[in-house]
Amino acid sequence: APTLTIGGHTVRSRLFVGTGKYATLELMRECLDASGCEVVTVAVRRERLFDREGRNLLDFLDPKRYTILPNTAGCFSAEEALRTARLGRELLEGLGNPGADWVKLEVLADTRTLLPDPVATLESTRVLVKEGFQVLCYTSDDPIMARRLKEAGAASVMPAGSPIGSGQGVLNPNNIRIILEDLKGGDPSYPVIVDAGVGTASDVAVAMELGCDGVLLNTGIAGAKDPLRMAHAMRLAVEAGRLASGAGRIARKLYATASSPTQGLVGRN
Amino acid sequence: APTLTIGGHTVRSRLFVGTGKYATLELMRECLDASGCEVVTVAVRRERLFDREGRNLLDFLDPKRYTILPNTAGCFSAEEALRTARLGRELLEGLGNPGADWVKLEVLADTRTLLPDPVATLESTRVLVKEGFQVLCYTSDDPIMARRLKEAGAASVMPAGSPIGSGQGVLNPNNIRIILEDLKGGDPSYPVIVDAGVGTASDVAVAMELGCDGVLLNTGIAGAKDPLRMAHAMRLAVEAGRLASGAGRIARKLYATASSPTQGLVGRN
Amino acid sequence: APTLTIGGHTVRSRLFVGTGKYATLELMRECLDASGCEVVTVAVRRERLFDREGRNLLDFLDPKRYTILPNTAGCFSAEEALRTARLGRELLEGLGNPGADWVKLEVLADTRTLLPDPVATLESTRVLVKEGFQVLCYTSDDPIMARRLKEAGAASVMPAGSPIGSGQGVLNPNNIRIILEDLKGGDPSYPVIVDAGVGTASDVAVAMELGCDGVLLNTGIAGAKDPLRMAHAMRLAVEAGRLASGAGRIARKLYATASSPTQGLVGRN
Amino acid sequence: APTLTIGGHTVRSRLFVGTGKYATLELMRECLDASGCEVVTVAVRRERLFDREGRNLLDFLDPKRYTILPNTAGCFSAEEALRTARLGRELLEGLGNPGADWVKLEVLADTRTLLPDPVATLESTRVLVKEGFQVLCYTSDDPIMARRLKEAGAASVMPAGSPIGSGQGVLNPNNIRIILEDLKGGDPSYPVIVDAGVGTASDVAVAMELGCDGVLLNTGIAGAKDPLRMAHAMRLAVEAGRLASGAGRIARKLYATASSPTQGLVGRN
Repeated sequence: APTLTIGGHTVRSRLFVGTGKYATLELMRECLDASGCEVVTVAVRRERLFDREGRNLLDFLDPKRYTILPNTAGCFSAEEALRTARLGRELLEGLGNPGADWVKLEVLADTRTLLPDPVATLESTRVLVKEGFQVLCYTSDDPIMARRLKEAGAASVMPAGSPIGSGQGVLNPNNIRIILEDLKGGDPSYPVIVDAGVGTASDVAVAMELGCDGVLLNTGIAGAKDPLRMAHAMRLAVEAGRLASGAGRIARKLYATASSPTQGLVGRN
Repeated sequence: APTLTIGGHTVRSRLFVGTGKYATLELMRECLDASGCEVVTVAVRRERLFDREGRNLLDFLDPKRYTILPNTAGCFSAEEALRTARLGRELLEGLGNPGADWVKLEVLADTRTLLPDPVATLESTRVLVKEGFQVLCYTSDDPIMARRLKEAGAASVMPAGSPIGSGQGVLNPNNIRIILEDLKGGDPSYPVIVDAGVGTASDVAVAMELGCDGVLLNTGIAGAKDPLRMAHAMRLAVEAGRLASGAGRIARKLYATASSPTQGLVGRN
Repeated sequence: APTLTIGGHTVRSRLFVGTGKYATLELMRECLDASGCEVVTVAVRRERLFDREGRNLLDFLDPKRYTILPNTAGCFSAEEALRTARLGRELLEGLGNPGADWVKLEVLADTRTLLPDPVATLESTRVLVKEGFQVLCYTSDDPIMARRLKEAGAASVMPAGSPIGSGQGVLNPNNIRIILEDLKGGDPSYPVIVDAGVGTASDVAVAMELGCDGVLLNTGIAGAKDPLRMAHAMRLAVEAGRLASGAGRIARKLYATASSPTQGLVGRN
Repeated sequence: APTLTIGGHTVRSRLFVGTGKYATLELMRECLDASGCEVVTVAVRRERLFDREGRNLLDFLDPKRYTILPNTAGCFSAEEALRTARLGRELLEGLGNPGADWVKLEVLADTRTLLPDPVATLESTRVLVKEGFQVLCYTSDDPIMARRLKEAGAASVMPAGSPIGSGQGVLNPNNIRIILEDLKGGDPSYPVIVDAGVGTASDVAVAMELGCDGVLLNTGIAGAKDPLRMAHAMRLAVEAGRLASGAGRIARKLYATASSPTQGLVGRN
């Protein structure tokens, strides 16, 4: 499908981009532009909204162009995440931004690994769904947790390809495949978005080729030596991967005339 | 660099596309268009130039738009490859195509694996270089054979990512890295192009991210269920990979705060 | 350390072997013998204890040789798993087997994937720990769930390398590394055992080389064409991997004289 | 088969071990013992036979226990390799060692990568075969070069898993599979031995599981922090891999009940 609908929001770009870790807000703005994204995710904890000079990140985002997806980055308990989600709603309602009713839920387990806390994430999802939020859930690639989050009413499940900021791409395509089979079986338009771990363009392409609906990333662009160039690369990669996913790739074989695709083999294949 | 020069020919697109295996010549033409390629490689053995209805493939390629790179596909000895290379030169000179002076040299070892014959390839390269050809050499990913081909005067070395038509992408990035270090050391503009094995968009992106100058492919597009869609994907992937390659990606780590990049570890990392 | 202690039980062999899916109980007995295991895990649900001819699996296990680890395989809810765990305790107490006080807890999410149910597993662990069981927990490779299970009092956490019976080995070494760092940090003797997904000898070696304390497997042996031969292979592999893990392997490099180990690279390395 | 025959020599152990890079000759001797090897390969260039104190390496090898396989390590041209091979023959004939008629041929391309020189290796093989040597050829994993070496009369082809001393294991199982299919097709007892690149026990197991007849290694043991321990690990791993290879492993699947093995998939599977 040319467009993607998540919790009532419809977008064309499958790339969702974060706003942290940029050297300057000006560079952030340029990178968002180059990425082609329509949804920008913003950590709404007060200390993250302002730069050293006291400038508000939100002032650098054209409200006509971007839908803001508030997130609960930096929250290490359900309580903190819930408070931050509600704060984000207020803030965006005040701005008249259409993103006011959704939230990217992150409940992290610790500051070292930044891995999601499964139980606290599930509990927070239940509460926020009840409060009318469209919840986009950051989670590990555990297929059963992904299933539980969908059952709890999440508008989208967002499995990590690998830990936040690790740059390892999709470490376990097997799990992503099971998640897709599971969450999209009988419900093909249910959105699954790889969130976290993406280091470079091919990582994005792989995620899309697996059949994901989109990719959310931040460090991959913001941490590159030339963030603007990488933002452009990511824009093309997400589109390349989406097209390839729908194009029906050739089978993998030992060589072209081999009678059967590679299967059940030792080693890396 | 925004442009790539190989043996006197300068192009912007880093994607080189073959012309075999398409259901119809019309579909081939559309796919070439969608791929954004400027160089089209054509098997100049007579039996491969004409379709069932006797139509000439070359009539479907706009000579103002495409530079034709004649290739020796289907040749299983040095002798056959040399004869075919010379035939290609005559043919393209007759057409006034600027590709007349170059050739993509393939000397294959057998019809089953379609793997290149190293010694016959090296010998043929020496002969063709002496005859004034700009030789682009299809070879395995053996770094020393690649070095010998460059020493023999090849205008470009084209290591296989994996066997022709196998769809396995770049199976041994380590070898490609050594080839790049070796052939580009002190000669950074020497062109290295991954040729063969590419199955989908992420394979192309990986090849470019490794630092290759381009990718040549055929089956990956022609054999896809929707070749046109895949052609488009490949166009974006080559560009995404090229940009990412130059953007200075983040390091791979166990998790973002890990003190050192992943290294020397067992398993897949 | 030459021996491994889990919940008061000390063993030398690091291989834990299941008893399901064998063609005959005689073959099972031979394979257990060849595997060198000291701990045998048995599904204590009544329908799994008897073969077609009504023979009891337990009668085929020499009680002087093996410690039986009762498991809750085939349980799809916390309730069912708790009931089965208690049944196992009764059964083994009746037999005077030292394994009466421990249990391998599996709470599965569904019959299709046989993946563990995270929340039900955590809840069951808490209950069983309170009831005095030494709980060995089958779980996914999600590092935070592993941490929560240890916090809940599990005697050992047993992350899956890949889904039960999938034969894919350790799909995500990154997660296993984080689990080991986390659970063994400041508590190096805490036992972490890879459970599930092992297909062949090298999979076992990889798990041990990562630093795991043992491997539990069943289908890898029982489902092989020659189970006896595979049992022998697994015995050697677990020992090979354990020794290699402690031997301080050489670093991985592009080639021997490369100045730094491979790191942060695209592709498979 | 329980034994392996190469060029008239029959052995039971599938592990072939080198003698370079040990801290002391005493440690070397202990490691060879722990490895269970029957064939020891020795660089016969004079400067490599003696240690700092002028002691001869050969005096540390029990001639009743080990068959010495002289090698041409450190030779960078066909000429040098041929001279060294002949020197080795003289030397071992003088000692009455049964290894006098065979040679492990290494013709390296440069001191940086230590990769084999394909053309010089092929030419040297032809010469040495004519002179009556049983030639065991170190080569890259290029399947066609492997075929040419067998055609030239090599008693065994020894493809590198990865560059000498790189510790990367078998980087391209696809190539090893094609080599095995090719060289053993219609000639199943033809010996193929992975030589070089092995870093740890699982690398050895993988090579054997692919169907190779043996593994030759040196740095993997000599460069480990605890070489003796690693020697023991390698001994078990080669046996584990050989047994697993013959045991008919279970297929790889997304999960156990998936209808077909994993195949033609993106990512690592």
